[in-house]
Amino acid sequence: MKFEIKSKDPQSKARAGVMTTDHGDIETPIFMPVGTMGTVKGVHQKELIEEINADIILGNTYHLYLRPKTEILEKAGGLHKFMNWERPILTDSGGYQVYSLSGRRKIKEEGVNFKSHIDGSYHFFSPENVMEIQRTIGADIIMAFDECTPYPCDYKYAKRSMHMTHRWLNRCMAHLERLPFKYGYSQTFFPIVQGSTYKDLRKQSAEFIANVGAEGNAIGGLSVGEPAEEMYAMTDVVCSILPEDKPRYLMGVGTPINILENIALGVDMFDCVMPTRNARNGMLFTAYGSINIKNKKWEDDFSPIDSMGITYVDTYYSKAYLRHLFAANELLGKQIATVHNLGFYLWLTREARKHILAGDFADWKNKMVRQMDNRL
Amino acid sequence: MKFEIKSKDPQSKARAGVMTTDHGDIETPIFMPVGTMGTVKGVHQKELIEEINADIILGNTYHLYLRPKTEILEKAGGLHKFMNWERPILTDSGGYQVYSLSGRRKIKEEGVNFKSHIDGSYHFFSPENVMEIQRTIGADIIMAFDECTPYPCDYKYAKRSMHMTHRWLNRCMAHLERLPFKYGYSQTFFPIVQGSTYKDLRKQSAEFIANVGAEGNAIGGLSVGEPAEEMYAMTDVVCSILPEDKPRYLMGVGTPINILENIALGVDMFDCVMPTRNARNGMLFTAYGSINIKNKKWEDDFSPIDSMGITYVDTYYSKAYLRHLFAANELLGKQIATVHNLGFYLWLTREARKHILAGDFADWKNKMVRQMDNRL
Repeated sequence: MKFEIKSKDPQSKARAGVMTTDHGDIETPIFMPVGTMGTVKGVHQKELIEEINADIILGNTYHLYLRPKTEILEKAGGLHKFMNWERPILTDSGGYQVYSLSGRRKIKEEGVNFKSHIDGSYHFFSPENVMEIQRTIGADIIMAFDECTPYPCDYKYAKRSMHMTHRWLNRCMAHLERLPFKYGYSQTFFPIVQGSTYKDLRKQSAEFIANVGAEGNAIGGLSVGEPAEEMYAMTDVVCSILPEDKPRYLMGVGTPINILENIALGVDMFDCVMPTRNARNGMLFTAYGSINIKNKKWEDDFSPIDSMGITYVDTYYSKAYLRHLFAANELLGKQIATVHNLGFYLWLTREARKHILAGDFADWKNKMVRQMDNRL
Repeated sequence: MKFEIKSKDPQSKARAGVMTTDHGDIETPIFMPVGTMGTVKGVHQKELIEEINADIILGNTYHLYLRPKTEILEKAGGLHKFMNWERPILTDSGGYQVYSLSGRRKIKEEGVNFKSHIDGSYHFFSPENVMEIQRTIGADIIMAFDECTPYPCDYKYAKRSMHMTHRWLNRCMAHLERLPFKYGYSQTFFPIVQGSTYKDLRKQSAEFIANVGAEGNAIGGLSVGEPAEEMYAMTDVVCSILPEDKPRYLMGVGTPINILENIALGVDMFDCVMPTRNARNGMLFTAYGSINIKNKKWEDDFSPIDSMGITYVDTYYSKAYLRHLFAANELLGKQIATVHNLGFYLWLTREARKHILAGDFADWKNKMVRQMDNRL
């Protein structure tokens, strides 16, 4: 993977770059739609390309490992072929999902024992086998196996956990050295900074990660319930330490406002289930604020869903029609809202990029943050 | 509406025609996807046009009356505008849905009292108010308010019900004469033949309906559980009496085989929830038989869903991928299967038309009926 910074914003730490992978270029800042099970819920691959124009999507190692299972993905020749997606893919390491299975998992130095949420069967993830699984899934960017601490998290636990994540990182890298790529294209490995909401731990972790000299770096353990200001404080500390010439990925973030604020702090890559999950619940994001389309006030509002018309659904369907689809619990409602929200998120990061290139990102960001804070 | 027969099959009663409506032409024989609530479940309007190429779709009066409600559709300027669908629409009369609400409805000479399946509220449908509702929904083809008898149905009930349906028909027509179109395009009224599975009643009803001189005629009360042979026998009797120069619509039918057999008996129009409902349960129709995509046998079958490639989904996605989506209960599975099945149904009726025009329909039909009877 190659990463080139095209421009830096003069009034913030925002950067516009290009990542080059064997499956194509990714212009940063970028939002990556979440395709947990090898599908971005409710959206055809064709729509992801033609309407949403997603440069890269995410897959979840934990979910794909359980279903369709690693051996099916191997037989298919990897996730790209399995789902017929020719653009880049990033897989997480399963660390976050396994951490979420509280009561069903046991974290030890060796790795994590867990029970499948599907059938209760027992499984074991270690830094080593998670690297093997990610080799088999075949994403362009693969992630270190880490422990994601909860919020709040006591200092002692956060510190111990961070050190284990660092030891696991060494094991991931040692194991990857012995594991060749499986499908004739390269996979880039990103380590993950942890340290909960403690500045000194975040600093220590970022220094450890920076030292590893990876081609890209991630910030984990945020957007787990902490106030936005704490998140920004941590991002700020970490970005000031992570190498400037490598892409920075803030995992699991966030609202449109979170994304712009973190871009201003030097983050390049984002993923979050919010645009897709909220869409399925009838919440739409727009440049002028959010819309709960289930509200009765939209019942006879025949204006377009979003007059900005980022994707075709925005002007093809009316608010009243979309509201009706949600009232009747129709699949098409979820489909339309998902295309809209993802289209908007991708527009937002592209627009951020344009403003970074134009040198007026900070002003634009401040205006957008105010505007998007409304409930319509 | 104009109806022109372009060709008749020499070895069966199949006909190829063209219906002209104010929203465009419909080439017959035609299958009409069911859009119960103003949406064909799981499919964008754009896909209905570009992939499935549906000439006409159906809406259900009962459902649209309850949600979004007639007054919202009136404010929208009719269902076409509400859902942004510029091609023809047909609405049923609500008779079938109301009949299905057993225990929640009371049928009297005046009309039907029923309780909403949504909130238990009380409503009344009469031949007169159903015509008003259909004027407001604004479909291109609107249906008489009838009673759909169950199967089996005793002779006495079937006869009494048929006569009431005939009296209701007179009331529908008398009321329509006083009701102008609402939206500047015309609406064509189809009466409905009833008579359960009794040949003499079907004959009597078909004669009554034929006498009415409507621009098109429908056959109701079939595909309600009777054996296919009884259905064909009834269709045969009725089609031999209904005027030749008017389109004939067999309501709620059916499997791909049912459709071809009824085309051979002189039917021009069909609708059925089978392609969409079965799709959502993982059942695919193909020219070579049906597929239960949930079966484990497809787990590592990476061949296209349907190598015929009628719609793009057929070759874009593999059987193994679609099977995975159903195993994981992902929305995209339902979406793909629905596009596939509707694409296939529309292909089937178009192909039937081609063969009628070519004069070799009967042979082709017999071959297809054998072929489609397989389970793959």
